[in-house]
Amino acid sequence: MKAYDIILKKRNGEVLTEDEIRFFIRGIVDGSIPDYQATAFLMAVYFRGMTDEETVTLTDAMMHSGDTVDLSRFGQLSVDKHSTGGVGDKTSLIVAPIVGSLGLKLAKMSGRGLGHTGGTVDKLESIPGYRTDLPADAFLRQVEKTNIAVIGQTGNMVPADKILYSLRDVTATVDSIPLITSSIMSKKLAAGAHTIVLDVKTGSGAFMKTPADARVLAEKMVLIGKACGRKMAALITDMDTPLGTNIGNALEVKEAVEVLRGKKNDLYEVSIALASNITALALQLPIDEAKARCEQTVASGAAFDKMKEWISSQGGDVTYLEDLSRFPQAKYEIPIRAERDGYITHMDAEKLGLLCVELGAGRRKKGDSIDFSAGLILCAKTGDLICKGDLLATAYTSIPGLEETVNGAYHDAVSYSDAAPEKKPLIYDVIS
Amino acid sequence: MKAYDIILKKRNGEVLTEDEIRFFIRGIVDGSIPDYQATAFLMAVYFRGMTDEETVTLTDAMMHSGDTVDLSRFGQLSVDKHSTGGVGDKTSLIVAPIVGSLGLKLAKMSGRGLGHTGGTVDKLESIPGYRTDLPADAFLRQVEKTNIAVIGQTGNMVPADKILYSLRDVTATVDSIPLITSSIMSKKLAAGAHTIVLDVKTGSGAFMKTPADARVLAEKMVLIGKACGRKMAALITDMDTPLGTNIGNALEVKEAVEVLRGKKNDLYEVSIALASNITALALQLPIDEAKARCEQTVASGAAFDKMKEWISSQGGDVTYLEDLSRFPQAKYEIPIRAERDGYITHMDAEKLGLLCVELGAGRRKKGDSIDFSAGLILCAKTGDLICKGDLLATAYTSIPGLEETVNGAYHDAVSYSDAAPEKKPLIYDVIS
Repeated sequence: MKAYDIILKKRNGEVLTEDEIRFFIRGIVDGSIPDYQATAFLMAVYFRGMTDEETVTLTDAMMHSGDTVDLSRFGQLSVDKHSTGGVGDKTSLIVAPIVGSLGLKLAKMSGRGLGHTGGTVDKLESIPGYRTDLPADAFLRQVEKTNIAVIGQTGNMVPADKILYSLRDVTATVDSIPLITSSIMSKKLAAGAHTIVLDVKTGSGAFMKTPADARVLAEKMVLIGKACGRKMAALITDMDTPLGTNIGNALEVKEAVEVLRGKKNDLYEVSIALASNITALALQLPIDEAKARCEQTVASGAAFDKMKEWISSQGGDVTYLEDLSRFPQAKYEIPIRAERDGYITHMDAEKLGLLCVELGAGRRKKGDSIDFSAGLILCAKTGDLICKGDLLATAYTSIPGLEETVNGAYHDAVSYSDAAPEKKPLIYDVIS
Repeated sequence: MKAYDIILKKRNGEVLTEDEIRFFIRGIVDGSIPDYQATAFLMAVYFRGMTDEETVTLTDAMMHSGDTVDLSRFGQLSVDKHSTGGVGDKTSLIVAPIVGSLGLKLAKMSGRGLGHTGGTVDKLESIPGYRTDLPADAFLRQVEKTNIAVIGQTGNMVPADKILYSLRDVTATVDSIPLITSSIMSKKLAAGAHTIVLDVKTGSGAFMKTPADARVLAEKMVLIGKACGRKMAALITDMDTPLGTNIGNALEVKEAVEVLRGKKNDLYEVSIALASNITALALQLPIDEAKARCEQTVASGAAFDKMKEWISSQGGDVTYLEDLSRFPQAKYEIPIRAERDGYITHMDAEKLGLLCVELGAGRRKKGDSIDFSAGLILCAKTGDLICKGDLLATAYTSIPGLEETVNGAYHDAVSYSDAAPEKKPLIYDVIS
């Protein structure tokens, strides 16, 4: 078998066999297929696509290209969630304690933030003492003990994706449904959970700009996960506007705690929807009953207690969660005020995410250091009626002299009108 | 400017600017754009194509990526021919003396054979003493003195093509009209001739399998050459059957000499057509008059004298040309006889070319050594009526034990029928 023939076959729009796909992935990982053949193949896949069968095989081959996590000891109780990435998206910090408090087992590996989107690992590291680098056995022991462990990606998980993603990133072959699907799903499947619920974001701050695009991706991922024997659901949720009010690492932990202590907003709603779908699938409950249990565990405080138990077992100082004012404050607070009366008709989530990078809360490139205390707190969101001079948001930063930049960037990201905007759904659909 | 953006733009089907194309070629040559971005770009070009303007710019950028030959001292008299490659195609050995004897200046750089097709440089090296590695000044001095010099590719000519071709070759991006056009034409333009006549082959032994495909390529190359200020024509000629009777290096030199000494066959016809078009363009003559001059210079022996003068100035021993029996003989001669009565309806030129590789006459991969004496002489060609037991061909090789292989491969390449096949044109068209 030769890489050339596989590239040619895909280029010509033919369907690859299982052997061909596995040969290609093996060759990419062991180095026998060079990068320049890999990228030609990726571009051919961009143009020709892949059948569902090819995508399943690709995903499976990628998943088995390195280490996988064995969660079989947890039987049907192991669960996972994955978000395609957004701005202000701290649902993992809320969903984990909810499902953990209901007896489900969440052994989660998360990523770091890059560009306009944040990462759960960074957010958790803003809690002093929290360890995101547990060894594999400690990781699983903790899940056994507290039902939840969230760490950074470790070991040699899905090396095929690391190679392919780094190549796609520089060759304009990222936005291909089979390639996105196999990239996300190979990692999720390798992480071992029996039930996986996806949060596919759509809108200005998301990779998928329209609900229709998001649905195509969501359906494909659900199909692949099911084909690999997992229980699957995908929510299509809005990321046209940032989720919740807080953007930035410690600020997002604070908002997650607020929600677990009873604050009700869009963040609460999406978190409950994700947790309900996980619970319904894993415990084989009707969705309404699952939702009632999730709401109840927040209302009773059991979910917040579970969060503290989890954070504490991973070395985090829970006194910060009990007294949110303990988190270090940024040196500068920059108020952003309304320049006119009217309704907020649109907030560009990506632009606000990039503003937070300017404030020090995010990374321009891998390896950049971040300021946990930096970020934005929004006081008004899409649909709100505001008056000139109202406080719209506060920016937090330790970099001096950003007043003009912050006001310029905020007002560039936000649109106003005299008429109230049409209300858009927060959750477009649930695919299962 | 970033390579990524150029790949993305082409992937999206947009037209690249001159600056973008030149940036990309510069980056490929200076190494600032890695191979894996180059191949993704090539695959995007495969799918999206290029406008004529883009192809002209690409060709020009490639042509200027390294050294170019300055033939301006020869004014309008400098000429060149190029064949897209075939089996038994020794027209350069005949066309060069014809046009040289008419006062035209042919300063030609040729390639070596690979796979089923031969190369002019290999054929010339079968003449003992012939030097294909003249330094640039000696090369031009010889053209001045004898009107002809044919050498191998030297110096740093069109490095962009060397890089791109080696990448296309392993990524299934060879058969793209803009990429083929720019590859061929950048080298031809860099070689400096004012008049360029192309021999675009079509059929089983050619890269372009149908006359229609060959025409598309021919028209594009003529257009590009004209846009770069050259006089251009392209012949579309048959390569469904090998050209002439002899395949293999010394065997082809012998046949070229035979044609220059008066043998009339398909090889003579194509050679005269190429030479006539070159002469008509370079001397601004009507094609009929040009053709008459070419036929006359062969008939008078002037062309053969010119061949000897040329070969001799490049160090070749012309006693071999004067007495063809002096060429070393292969150890074994294998007769191939007809297994039935009938007409030969088809000879697969590519398969016969590959048979010659088996005999030792060609290369499987770059750098393989070759046996100049090996090859095939065909006694019957497509359309001929044959009787069982007739000698159809003789194979020459110094490798023992090939009788069965040779007979098997020959009969696999040749088809027979009781009815005479329809006669196909030898020259399909002339594009100018």
